[in-house]
Amino acid sequence: MLAQKTADLILAGDVRAAARLMRAVDDDLPGAVEVLKRLFPHTGRAWVLGFTGSPGVGKSTLTDAVIGAYRAQHQSVGVVAVDPTSPFTGGAILGDRIRMQRHATDEGVFIRSLATRGQFGGLTASTRGVVTIMDAMGKDLVLVETVGVGQDEVDIVRMADTTVIVVVPGLGDDIQAIKAGILEAGDIFVVNKMDREGAGRTAAELQAMIAMRGRKEGAPETWTPPVLMTCASDGRGVDELIQAVAAHRAVLQAEGGRLLKERRRARARMEILELVKNRAMTILLRRLENGQSLDLLAGQVACLERDPYSVVEEIMAHAALHD
Amino acid sequence: MLAQKTADLILAGDVRAAARLMRAVDDDLPGAVEVLKRLFPHTGRAWVLGFTGSPGVGKSTLTDAVIGAYRAQHQSVGVVAVDPTSPFTGGAILGDRIRMQRHATDEGVFIRSLATRGQFGGLTASTRGVVTIMDAMGKDLVLVETVGVGQDEVDIVRMADTTVIVVVPGLGDDIQAIKAGILEAGDIFVVNKMDREGAGRTAAELQAMIAMRGRKEGAPETWTPPVLMTCASDGRGVDELIQAVAAHRAVLQAEGGRLLKERRRARARMEILELVKNRAMTILLRRLENGQSLDLLAGQVACLERDPYSVVEEIMAHAALHD
Repeated sequence: MLAQKTADLILAGDVRAAARLMRAVDDDLPGAVEVLKRLFPHTGRAWVLGFTGSPGVGKSTLTDAVIGAYRAQHQSVGVVAVDPTSPFTGGAILGDRIRMQRHATDEGVFIRSLATRGQFGGLTASTRGVVTIMDAMGKDLVLVETVGVGQDEVDIVRMADTTVIVVVPGLGDDIQAIKAGILEAGDIFVVNKMDREGAGRTAAELQAMIAMRGRKEGAPETWTPPVLMTCASDGRGVDELIQAVAAHRAVLQAEGGRLLKERRRARARMEILELVKNRAMTILLRRLENGQSLDLLAGQVACLERDPYSVVEEIMAHAALHD
Repeated sequence: MLAQKTADLILAGDVRAAARLMRAVDDDLPGAVEVLKRLFPHTGRAWVLGFTGSPGVGKSTLTDAVIGAYRAQHQSVGVVAVDPTSPFTGGAILGDRIRMQRHATDEGVFIRSLATRGQFGGLTASTRGVVTIMDAMGKDLVLVETVGVGQDEVDIVRMADTTVIVVVPGLGDDIQAIKAGILEAGDIFVVNKMDREGAGRTAAELQAMIAMRGRKEGAPETWTPPVLMTCASDGRGVDELIQAVAAHRAVLQAEGGRLLKERRRARARMEILELVKNRAMTILLRRLENGQSLDLLAGQVACLERDPYSVVEEIMAHAALHD
């Protein structure tokens, strides 16, 4: 009943109800799922645009410029910034967020930050939940911004309809060290800070890597990822980036959206697996904690009295998850 | 029978048997666990030293210098390099590895690379497995090197006895953006490339962050993480780093090793949870794949016929993992 009421409020565009639900999703509160279930049938209209890149490549400034460009086209925009924040590093992250504040008073822009979670926190699942809410709110575009290293981030950007990978020139081995999964997930590559020395070489290296890489699962054969140059701070190249996103979208939506459906099926598959993983771990952990046995078992392993592998076999047997 | 024979070979120092088992651990082959069980009681003697930092901070060069310093003290060394490799970036990673090759012909050094795995691949668990093997082989030191962003990497460095965080000057927001979990996990901080502009400021910022951060669970009250300066390419500061590791080790081993036991209990706890997670997901995935239902369910979610949350509840009900 309450879940339906909250869902109705959000579908009617109530920003406060949406913000409350996003907090509940982030905190993994029990009631949140019931609302998400009701919102889900009303989603699928927003275009989900993923932005990723290492710290310092200027992702936030670029996201800011992209928001401005879409707003100029009268598109409504939701932003999910997934960030490795912490109490003592809050300053820098806040600094980034504040740069986006010029859109904070714009009703067409809704910005939400999510922090990286602990071991079984399910950042991917909560990001998807927030994207679902923004989609249900009627946003035309949802931008998901992550720091592009680590498996969580790969999973998150893989869930976008169009994934933009941002790099800067002159980070030495950095491009070569871009996480494989992320390179493979890129639909559009951007060399930001294009005035820096080596921008052309960086772009050429990316082109070479794209040519070398295998085609990713579900990627359209008619799409070769372009490598663009931008200067987010003065807006150069941003229009070309917006056009590239539109071109990629057009390819996915061609032929009745065949490629888009394929891509979203892969996304649904990942989302289901992610939710199953979180749920299974929540249940297993609760059982372990209730039994008060985990610390005891860890102590035995630390003293070499038992090996961790036998311990895990015992736990699995009790959890009725054995073969 | 075969498992015991392999274990005996490794305990006797057979490098080829050890390398074969490491491959089996990395590939998650069924027989590997039986050997690990038998090796486990013979572990706990090696000091596990974690090195982490973003791409480009010179971790490999520093690891190389540290290996040299320990070899000069006649310590045997195992190295586990955890890397985001891929077919098309193999060159750069290989380049790093080759720098370590000056130790490749040294029988006292054993180097093994592990690649970042997919969604449920369990990189943390396989890294622990390889560390266990090196420990059982009788290595005095095991160096674990990771790229320091992402939850996997945080988990991996948390499993070290001494964790070294490497940064470089002049990466702008990079230090501020260091993943919170990693900063909290640092026992020793190193500003590498100390001749670069801003090295002093970077060190001062790190000192300030260390002063601000809360004490991590299990951290000795008698230990304040030092911030050191190094130049890995010419070896300056490496001796001081080795001394800091020895000092940290002495603190953990004081009072009959009370703090070390606490730390290794926390590590055993993480290892058990990680293994439980992998096992549970393996079983759940196999059931899903056998039922051939996952793709069907993903298709229904992609078409908005069903929501992912209800689908997951159904899966969990079948998996006998419900509440």
